[in-house]
Amino acid sequence: MSAGDRSLLTRAAALDEADPLAWCADAFVPAGEGAQVVRAYLDGNSLGRPLRATAARLEHVVAHDWGTRLIRSWDEQWMDLPTRLGDRIGRVLLGAAPGQTVVADSTTVLLYKLVRAAMSAAPAGRTRIVLDSENFPTDRYVVAGIAAELGLELDWLHPDPAAGVRPEEVAAVVDERTALVVLSQVAYKSAWLADLPAITQIAHDAGALVLWDLCHSAGVVAADLDANQVDLAVGCSYKFLNGGPGAPAFAYVARRHLEAGMRQPIQGWMGHAQPFVMGPEHVPAPGIRSFISGTPAILGMAGIADTVDLAERAGLAAIRAKSVALTEFTIEAYDDVLAPRGVRLGTVREADRRGSHVSLGHDRFRQVVATLWGEHIVPDFREPDAIRLGLAPLSTRYTEAALAVTRIAELLDAS
Amino acid sequence: MSAGDRSLLTRAAALDEADPLAWCADAFVPAGEGAQVVRAYLDGNSLGRPLRATAARLEHVVAHDWGTRLIRSWDEQWMDLPTRLGDRIGRVLLGAAPGQTVVADSTTVLLYKLVRAAMSAAPAGRTRIVLDSENFPTDRYVVAGIAAELGLELDWLHPDPAAGVRPEEVAAVVDERTALVVLSQVAYKSAWLADLPAITQIAHDAGALVLWDLCHSAGVVAADLDANQVDLAVGCSYKFLNGGPGAPAFAYVARRHLEAGMRQPIQGWMGHAQPFVMGPEHVPAPGIRSFISGTPAILGMAGIADTVDLAERAGLAAIRAKSVALTEFTIEAYDDVLAPRGVRLGTVREADRRGSHVSLGHDRFRQVVATLWGEHIVPDFREPDAIRLGLAPLSTRYTEAALAVTRIAELLDAS
Repeated sequence: MSAGDRSLLTRAAALDEADPLAWCADAFVPAGEGAQVVRAYLDGNSLGRPLRATAARLEHVVAHDWGTRLIRSWDEQWMDLPTRLGDRIGRVLLGAAPGQTVVADSTTVLLYKLVRAAMSAAPAGRTRIVLDSENFPTDRYVVAGIAAELGLELDWLHPDPAAGVRPEEVAAVVDERTALVVLSQVAYKSAWLADLPAITQIAHDAGALVLWDLCHSAGVVAADLDANQVDLAVGCSYKFLNGGPGAPAFAYVARRHLEAGMRQPIQGWMGHAQPFVMGPEHVPAPGIRSFISGTPAILGMAGIADTVDLAERAGLAAIRAKSVALTEFTIEAYDDVLAPRGVRLGTVREADRRGSHVSLGHDRFRQVVATLWGEHIVPDFREPDAIRLGLAPLSTRYTEAALAVTRIAELLDAS
Repeated sequence: MSAGDRSLLTRAAALDEADPLAWCADAFVPAGEGAQVVRAYLDGNSLGRPLRATAARLEHVVAHDWGTRLIRSWDEQWMDLPTRLGDRIGRVLLGAAPGQTVVADSTTVLLYKLVRAAMSAAPAGRTRIVLDSENFPTDRYVVAGIAAELGLELDWLHPDPAAGVRPEEVAAVVDERTALVVLSQVAYKSAWLADLPAITQIAHDAGALVLWDLCHSAGVVAADLDANQVDLAVGCSYKFLNGGPGAPAFAYVARRHLEAGMRQPIQGWMGHAQPFVMGPEHVPAPGIRSFISGTPAILGMAGIADTVDLAERAGLAAIRAKSVALTEFTIEAYDDVLAPRGVRLGTVREADRRGSHVSLGHDRFRQVVATLWGEHIVPDFREPDAIRLGLAPLSTRYTEAALAVTRIAELLDAS
């Protein structure tokens, strides 16, 4: 280890010492013990770590809510959990007033339901959807599938892969034929933080609706959905919301669209106005509840609830500040030790255009990541040659980022 | 308590004593302790109880698979879990060879995907779907929604509500315009066990496909999907499969349809042939994996896996035998103490046409159930006046059924 690397780790330790959110990291279940202990986890943007509170809550849910109250828990607490938890996500993380956010399904299924809902409300002649080639695959696949199904046309944006969609690119393509614009607030590869307010306004000025995918932004950067008059949003709960593998997603539908009767196509019993009457006709529940289809995944909501609690105590502004500081530190570390070794930076340098991960590129990263995983240093590998360092402000320590960057440099030197 | 009631409890105790599956009940987490202990749980057909193995497995998943292996668990075990567990459900419970069953989504969402898939494969001119007014609401609502969406026509059967759909009723309506027949193997209210082989044959003779909802039959009665050449099936995992509240559902698509390229409409990244390549086009994975849309709910699969293990050790034939014996015993108890008190039987007396619950009717049952729940005797109430006694062969003791019937009789006498 060089003097520069030691200095990196020393600086990181000082930053951890001074971190006002350091107490949050102690709220997580320790990642392994003995020889299995994870030395650095840098993939909280793919799978967030479990909170201690969640381990305890799940034990209680199994023994008490499920195991003892049994079916009575539906009456006592579970029927309203998708909207109650949705409202809390809305208030603490999304800037959404109650009655517009619900926890359900997967991101993919909610994307399908929301895009179909938007298209069912589109005026005649608005048959085009704007999306971008750098969006997460499921967004592109779902929208392309619906376009094929309904005979719609797609306007593909092709943004800079190391950055993302800019307002002027959207402005250049939306017009009176545009029904919907589907974009991610934070790009899953580059971490580009889109200008959500400006792009939403541009879509609205053209008479189109906008659907924001918040998978890589929910929990780390504000969306202010109500203030920005966003129409629709979906997001994932197993990244920064620590819901656990395959935890249910969330959807936001602005009140004005709910009141206008916007409808999703998978009409199931749980979205019925009176689910236990079991009548002959499907009568949608009032409001966001009509966007539920089947029975909600209760176990998967435990971690989300605990993370929203923690995020509320930490404060979203402080979380965002730590996220920016973590990515700044990581980019400085990149400049110090990885740029000289030929590593490419796939994330922008402007902090206000960046989410909470840093993308790096090198043609030997596939092997580097395999080695790192074996050493219990765990970043994310993305085909064909990218490392993503996911920096979860509630759980990631600066020393974890420093250790990963240091070991990447050593492994590049070693071979 | 009368002499007759005492005799009922005595007979039940003797049956428990002689029950070859009594050891299975000990495999479940005790339902409460002290004043909270559940004295009789008769709603395993709405929400099955947690197994001790599941409580332990969830602890391990949180601490180790999720908390320590973290993102590495996707590579190590989770990517294939939906099809690996699907194959096990298929082999142990459904009579389905590997490669045709997958765990995903909710029953409602899978119903939507399978009905849409069936319709996408229907020959021109086949624009009618057969379903029945006594099917579970979500089946009816999903099919009605798709019919409205695609401009299809519905042929409604109106079976005897205290029994269910008979082959001759299906034969009378299917013809060369029928694309699909959607029925439940066991009716959620009456527990009517449909003649799956005969009805499937009738649908096929008319050139139609058949989709069986196994929600109330999976885990307690054989379906023999391959042998009966069933086309499509869905089922629920939080009833007799003890997956826990809102655990993911399962879908079966016969190999011949998979090989012919039958497609579902919600094309997400997890159903892609190469999910991590994240390419521009959606290329469906081969086989049943293409029916996955989003990220699978891992926590919700723990209980399913443990129940399939237990069912395999118990044997489905022995499970069915206990199910029949439990419902026989309960109907005898009904004859002894409830029929004289004006209670109606909503379930058929032929054991081979009956699933694993017994429906009873009385206009005072709403109040009776409220009292029973307070006493920790927990059957199911169904609007407007029905009690369902769900008899889960792996967990329900004869004495639980006897206690419930006895207390119902006492409460009817008391007021």
